[in-house]
Amino acid sequence: MNVVSVSLTPSSIEPRSLRGHVAVAVDVLRATSTIVRAIESGAERVIPCLTPDEAIARRASLGVDRVVLGGERGGVFIPGFDLGNSPLEYTPLRVSGKIVVFTTTNGTRAILACSAAHAAVVTVGAFGHLSALAEALVRANRSVHIACAGTNDRITGEDCLLAGILVNRLVESGLFRVGNDEARLVGGFSRDVGANESTLREALRASAGGRNLMELGFDRDIDECARVDWTAIIPVFDPNDGSIRSGKIE
Amino acid sequence: MNVVSVSLTPSSIEPRSLRGHVAVAVDVLRATSTIVRAIESGAERVIPCLTPDEAIARRASLGVDRVVLGGERGGVFIPGFDLGNSPLEYTPLRVSGKIVVFTTTNGTRAILACSAAHAAVVTVGAFGHLSALAEALVRANRSVHIACAGTNDRITGEDCLLAGILVNRLVESGLFRVGNDEARLVGGFSRDVGANESTLREALRASAGGRNLMELGFDRDIDECARVDWTAIIPVFDPNDGSIRSGKIE
Repeated sequence: MNVVSVSLTPSSIEPRSLRGHVAVAVDVLRATSTIVRAIESGAERVIPCLTPDEAIARRASLGVDRVVLGGERGGVFIPGFDLGNSPLEYTPLRVSGKIVVFTTTNGTRAILACSAAHAAVVTVGAFGHLSALAEALVRANRSVHIACAGTNDRITGEDCLLAGILVNRLVESGLFRVGNDEARLVGGFSRDVGANESTLREALRASAGGRNLMELGFDRDIDECARVDWTAIIPVFDPNDGSIRSGKIE
Repeated sequence: MNVVSVSLTPSSIEPRSLRGHVAVAVDVLRATSTIVRAIESGAERVIPCLTPDEAIARRASLGVDRVVLGGERGGVFIPGFDLGNSPLEYTPLRVSGKIVVFTTTNGTRAILACSAAHAAVVTVGAFGHLSALAEALVRANRSVHIACAGTNDRITGEDCLLAGILVNRLVESGLFRVGNDEARLVGGFSRDVGANESTLREALRASAGGRNLMELGFDRDIDECARVDWTAIIPVFDPNDGSIRSGKIE
C-alpha cells in the first residue's frame, strides 16, 4: 500500500521518505499559494531560487524582458524586484507569458529540498487547488511525502493544516496508509479544526505565519490563501531546467 | 494571562519559552512514566544523567549500596546496570529508599535541557499522574512549557498526545492561552484521538515509540504507560543536586 508521510520543517525531511515518491512542498502563507496563482494567471513557468542574488543572476541570463522577478525576505519586498510574495500581485496582466523568477524565505527552500532529496515528482500544495491536487495524488497511486516549509525552521500551523487535510483525503481513498507520526499528528489536528473556509481563515489568522503577515499589513493575503478549490492546475517542478510548470503527476 | 507552549523535540526548544516558567518534560514511552513509577514506589530520589558513563560515576560517588542504576540505550538494557527502562521493574522491593541513577536515550536529555534553559520549575509528565499534574499546573498559575522528548530528535506521537491533553486542560481552566503553533497542533490532535484508556493504548501502539517497543518485546510497557491517573505524585527536579523528588509546583 502507498504511504503518506509528512515533515513539519525542512530540516526534519528524511531523504528516504522522498526518494522515488511524490513530494508536495507546502508554504500556504504564501509561497506555494502564490506559485499556484502565478501559473493560473498564465505565467510560462516559475523558477524557484534559494537567494535574491541567484534570482537576479537568473533574470540576467534569461533576458530581463521575459522575466518577472518576485519574492520576499522576512515577508518584506526585496529592493530591485518587480513583485513581492502576495498572490494578489500575480495577475495575468503582470505575469501572463512571462517567466517568474521567485525566491522566498522558506517556500522556495522547501521545493528545492524535495528535489535535492530525489523525489520522483515535486509539486506544491495550496488551498486554491486542494481537491484537484488530492485527486491527482490518488490517481498517481504512488507514495507521497508532504514537506511543510514552516517559518525559519519552526513549525507553523497553516502548513500543518493543509498537510493534514491532504493526509486525510489520501487515507480516505483507501490507497494510502499513514506513514509517520507527523502525518498522524497533522491529520488529527486538521480533523479537529475542520476544513470550511471560515474555520480555515480563522486558523490561518491564529497561526505563527498568519500573525506575522497581519503585523506586516498583509491581512488580505490570508483570506486569499484560505480560498479553497478555485483552480485545478497542478504545478510540477522539472529538475532539468529548475522550472515549475502546469503539469501532471505521473 | 499565562501561556502554555510546546516543543515537539529537544532541538526545537526555544530558551525564551522556558525562562522563569514551569517546564514539563515528557517521554511517555518510557522515561517519564518510569520516573513517576520509581518515585511512587518509594525511591528517595531519581538522578537523571546524560550518559551511561556519567551514571556509573555518579553511582560510585554516592556509594553502590544506596544506588539503583537504571536506564537504556536505543531501548535496550545497558550492560552492568541494575534495571532497564521498564516502569514495571521499578517496584518498591527494588527501589524503596534507594537513589535511582537513571539515563535514557531521549527522556533524561529532555529533563536536563529544560533545566539548562533556566525553567523556574522542572517536572515530568506521564499518563499515570496526568490529572494531578494538570491540577498542580493550574494551581501554580504560571506559564508552562511542555518539552516533548521525541525519539532521536524525531517527533513521536505518544508525547504529542500527552502534551495535547495537558494543553487542553490548561486552556479549559481559563487561566492559560495557547502560546505557540506546536501547542495548537498537539491540542487538536489530542481532541481528535480522545483520552480514554482504550484510545490511548491504541494511539501508543501506533506511534513511532510504541512500534519500536513492540519490536523490542516491550508490549506490556505500552499498556502500563497508557494507564491513567493511578497516582497523584508530582516529581520535581532540583537543579542544586540534580535530583528529582516528590514535590510541589510553586
